[in-house]
Amino acid sequence: MSATLLLGATAPLAADQMSGAKADTGGYDGTGKVLIRNASMVLTMDPKVGQGQLGQLENADVLMTGDTVTAVGPNLSTTDARVIDGRGKIVMPGFVDLHTHTWQSLIRGCGTAKELNGWLAECVLPLYGNQPNEFDGYAGTRLSTLDAIGTGITTTTDWSHAFSDAFAQGNLRALGESKLRFVYAYSGNTNPARAEAIRKAKREIIDPNPLARLQIGTHPTTGNFAGTQASENLAKELGVSLNVHLHESKTDPATGQMDALRRAGALRPGLLANHVVQMTEAELDELAAHDVRVAHNPLSNMRLASGVAPLPAMKQRGLKVGLGIDGGTNDTTDMFNDMRAAVGLQRATAMDPTRFPQPADVLRMATLGGAEALGLDGHVGSLSPGKKADLQVIDPRALNMAPRVDWISQLVFNTQPANVQWVFVNGVALKREGRLTTPNVDRVLTDAQTASDHIMTLLGR
Amino acid sequence: MSATLLLGATAPLAADQMSGAKADTGGYDGTGKVLIRNASMVLTMDPKVGQGQLGQLENADVLMTGDTVTAVGPNLSTTDARVIDGRGKIVMPGFVDLHTHTWQSLIRGCGTAKELNGWLAECVLPLYGNQPNEFDGYAGTRLSTLDAIGTGITTTTDWSHAFSDAFAQGNLRALGESKLRFVYAYSGNTNPARAEAIRKAKREIIDPNPLARLQIGTHPTTGNFAGTQASENLAKELGVSLNVHLHESKTDPATGQMDALRRAGALRPGLLANHVVQMTEAELDELAAHDVRVAHNPLSNMRLASGVAPLPAMKQRGLKVGLGIDGGTNDTTDMFNDMRAAVGLQRATAMDPTRFPQPADVLRMATLGGAEALGLDGHVGSLSPGKKADLQVIDPRALNMAPRVDWISQLVFNTQPANVQWVFVNGVALKREGRLTTPNVDRVLTDAQTASDHIMTLLGR
Repeated sequence: MSATLLLGATAPLAADQMSGAKADTGGYDGTGKVLIRNASMVLTMDPKVGQGQLGQLENADVLMTGDTVTAVGPNLSTTDARVIDGRGKIVMPGFVDLHTHTWQSLIRGCGTAKELNGWLAECVLPLYGNQPNEFDGYAGTRLSTLDAIGTGITTTTDWSHAFSDAFAQGNLRALGESKLRFVYAYSGNTNPARAEAIRKAKREIIDPNPLARLQIGTHPTTGNFAGTQASENLAKELGVSLNVHLHESKTDPATGQMDALRRAGALRPGLLANHVVQMTEAELDELAAHDVRVAHNPLSNMRLASGVAPLPAMKQRGLKVGLGIDGGTNDTTDMFNDMRAAVGLQRATAMDPTRFPQPADVLRMATLGGAEALGLDGHVGSLSPGKKADLQVIDPRALNMAPRVDWISQLVFNTQPANVQWVFVNGVALKREGRLTTPNVDRVLTDAQTASDHIMTLLGR
Repeated sequence: MSATLLLGATAPLAADQMSGAKADTGGYDGTGKVLIRNASMVLTMDPKVGQGQLGQLENADVLMTGDTVTAVGPNLSTTDARVIDGRGKIVMPGFVDLHTHTWQSLIRGCGTAKELNGWLAECVLPLYGNQPNEFDGYAGTRLSTLDAIGTGITTTTDWSHAFSDAFAQGNLRALGESKLRFVYAYSGNTNPARAEAIRKAKREIIDPNPLARLQIGTHPTTGNFAGTQASENLAKELGVSLNVHLHESKTDPATGQMDALRRAGALRPGLLANHVVQMTEAELDELAAHDVRVAHNPLSNMRLASGVAPLPAMKQRGLKVGLGIDGGTNDTTDMFNDMRAAVGLQRATAMDPTRFPQPADVLRMATLGGAEALGLDGHVGSLSPGKKADLQVIDPRALNMAPRVDWISQLVFNTQPANVQWVFVNGVALKREGRLTTPNVDRVLTDAQTASDHIMTLLGR
C-alpha cells in the first residue's frame, strides 16, 4: 500500500478538493429558456402529447424554461431561448435507474464466479465488520453517478448498505454533487442511533435538496424481522417508502422474505421490491394486490445466475415495473444494454419473440415506468409540459446506430452510452455535446482507485 | 424517394469517392517498429508467453515489426521503434468476429418482433427477388466494418447472402477498403455462373489480398440439397471451408439440415456451423467427431428468440467455438456486450454461476477461439511472436471501467467500445487514440442511409 493511498483514504479533504471546480455547463445551468429545435424524433412517453404509447412526435421542439419542460410540439415560437439544433437527433426523458448501489463501483469485477450469496460473502458482508469510511462512500458514489450521467440516467435509486453513518454521509455528499435526481435508500436497523441518523439526514440533506428523496432500505427475512419492523416503522414515521431485495436468488424464498414483509405490515403501495425473480403466482398476486413496485435488473440477474424474472406475469397483473442497473452485480453502467437484456433474456428463454417486453415497452419501463415505481411520475419520467426538465438527446448518426430504419427498436438494440449527447436534470446540462460537464473526472478516477484499494484491504483480498 | 437517393443508389461513384481520402494512421502504417511500452496488463492468449490460460503478463512491452508481433515481454530493448505508452493500459489480441452479415447494418431495427423465419421473410428473403445493387452491398459493409473496428474487432467473418454478384462485389470492395482481416463466405448455388463468379473473386480479389480468405456459404436443407452439394463441391475444389447456419431456430431441425450436410459429405474439419442452438446430444457428438467449428451468437439468439446454445456440452466435447456479432439480427456491434451475454445467458438460465463460459473462457473464445475455428490460429488470435500484429489497446481508466479490481472480469462485465483506444491489423492502426483512422466517416453514414432507404423500398416497406 503506497503512502499516497494511505493519505487519500484517511486524510480529510481540503474544501476545494471536496467541491471540485465549477461545472462547465456552457451556461445551460437551469436558468432561462432552452429550445431543442426540430428534433427528428421526440419520445415524450406521454400519449396526450404525442402518438401512441410512447407519445411520439416527429420534427418537434422541446422548450425548457428554468427547471421545467414548458412546451413540446412542432414549430414552437420563442424569441428569447438558447437553441440546440435537434435535427437528426432523438429527444427522450432521461432514464430512471430504479435500483443500484452506487458505492459498488468500487467492487467492480469482484467475485464474478459467485452467485448472490457467495458474492455477498466475498465482496460485501465483511464490510459490516470492517467498515469503509466517509471517503470510500463518497468516492464510489462519485464514480457511479458520473458514469450514470454518461448513459442518460437522470434519476438514480441508491440502495446503500450504509455500513456506517459516515459512509452514508459520503454517499449523500457525492449524490448531491452529482446534480442527479436521486432516491437514497438508507438502511434501517434496530439501533435507535441509526434511526436518528436517518431522521437527521432527511432533515438536513434530503429535504433541503429538491432533487433528493429518501427511502428506508432493509433486508426482510425471518432472522432480521426486528430490523424489518423497525425499518418499516421508520418509513411510516417519515412518510417514505421501504426499499427491499425480494426473492432475487433461488435461496431467498426459504429465508422468509415475504413473511417478514407481511408481518411488518410493509406490503403496501410504494414498497419497492428489487429483483422479484423467484416468485410463485400467488406471491405475484399478493404484490399486485398491495401495489408493490418492482425493479427489474436483468444484467445483474445474468451475472449472479439469479434467474429470469417473470416480467409477462407482472405485466398481466398491472404491476409497476422499472429497470435497474444494479451496479456491482452487473458492473456495467449501460442502460441500453440493460434494456436489450430485459428484452432478450425473456425471448431466448421462452423462444417467443412476441413476449413482453417489446422495445417500446422497455423504453417506457426505463423512463416513466421507473418514475411510476418511485411515485415520481408527477414530476419526471415523461416530457409532459409542467414536469421537470430531465431529458436526454441522442445522436443516432453514428457508426453503431445509423441508418434510420426503426429508431424505437434501434434505441434498444443498437445504442451505446457514447451516443448520448446531452443530459439535462432539472434543466441543468450534466452532459453537453458528448462530454460530462463535471470538471474533475480525473480526480474522481484517482479517488475511486484509492477507495477501492482500501475496500479490498477491508475485504481481506 | 428523393433525387439524391436515386442518384446515390444507382449512379457509379467517381474514383475519389470510391477510395476516399487517405487514412490518418499517424504513420502507424505497418512499416518499421512500434513498441507498446510497459502495458499494465498484456493478455497474450498464449500460455507459453505469459501466465495461465490467457498468457497474462504484467507491466510488459509488445513489439511490432512491420505487420508482425516480434517480441512480447518486460523491458524489451529497442532503439528504433516508435513508442506508445502502455502504462495503465490493457493490450490483447483483436477480436475475431466469427459470424456476421456485414450488409445487414442496412436493416438494423427491422422486424424486431419476429423470430428467425418471420424476420427473414420481412427483412431479407424478398431481396433475392428484388436485388440490391453494388452500391448497397458496398455501403452496408463499409458501415459494418468501420463499426467493427471501433469495438476492437480485427478479423470479421462475413456470411454474405450475395443476392447478386454485383452485390457481392460491393461487399468485397468495402471489406478491402476496411483494412480488416476478413473471411468472406460467398453463397454458392447450383448455377454455374455463380461458381464461376466465386472462382473469379477468389483469383482476382481474395488471393491477392493477404488479409482475405474465402469460404463458401450455403443453407443446407433437404429442399436445398442440390445447392448444398454444389457449394460443398466448390469448397473442396477451391480448398476452402463451407460456412452454414445450423439449427439456429426451433424450426430448423425439421428442415433436414444435418442430413443435407451428411449426404453432401460436408461434415468435415473446418466446416463452420453458426448458432448450433437446437441440438441433440448425438448431433453434438457428430459435430465433434468431424471437428466442425461453431460460431456462438448470443445477442442474436436473444433478439430472435432462438434459444440458449449448449456451450457447456460443446466445451465438454472439445468443439472449437468462437463468438459472432451477427449484425442485423443482433444489431449492436459491441463485442464486450456479446461476451457479457455469452456468460450471462448461460448463468441466468442454469442458475449456476460456475457454468461455462467464465470471463476468461469468453475472452479466449472471442480471440484465439475464433481464430482456431477459422483455421487462422497460426497467423492471429494470440500475441505470440511471429504472428500477425492484430491487437487492441484498451484504456480502463474510464468512468465505466475503473477502478482496477479484476481486469479479466472487468473486460467482460464493464468494458464498452469507447474504451478501445487503439486497433492494429497487420501492424496498421485502424483506431488511434480513440478515433478511427478512416477519414470519411460522414460519407459512410450518408451512403448507408441512402442504401438502407433503397433496401427498404426493395423490401416493400
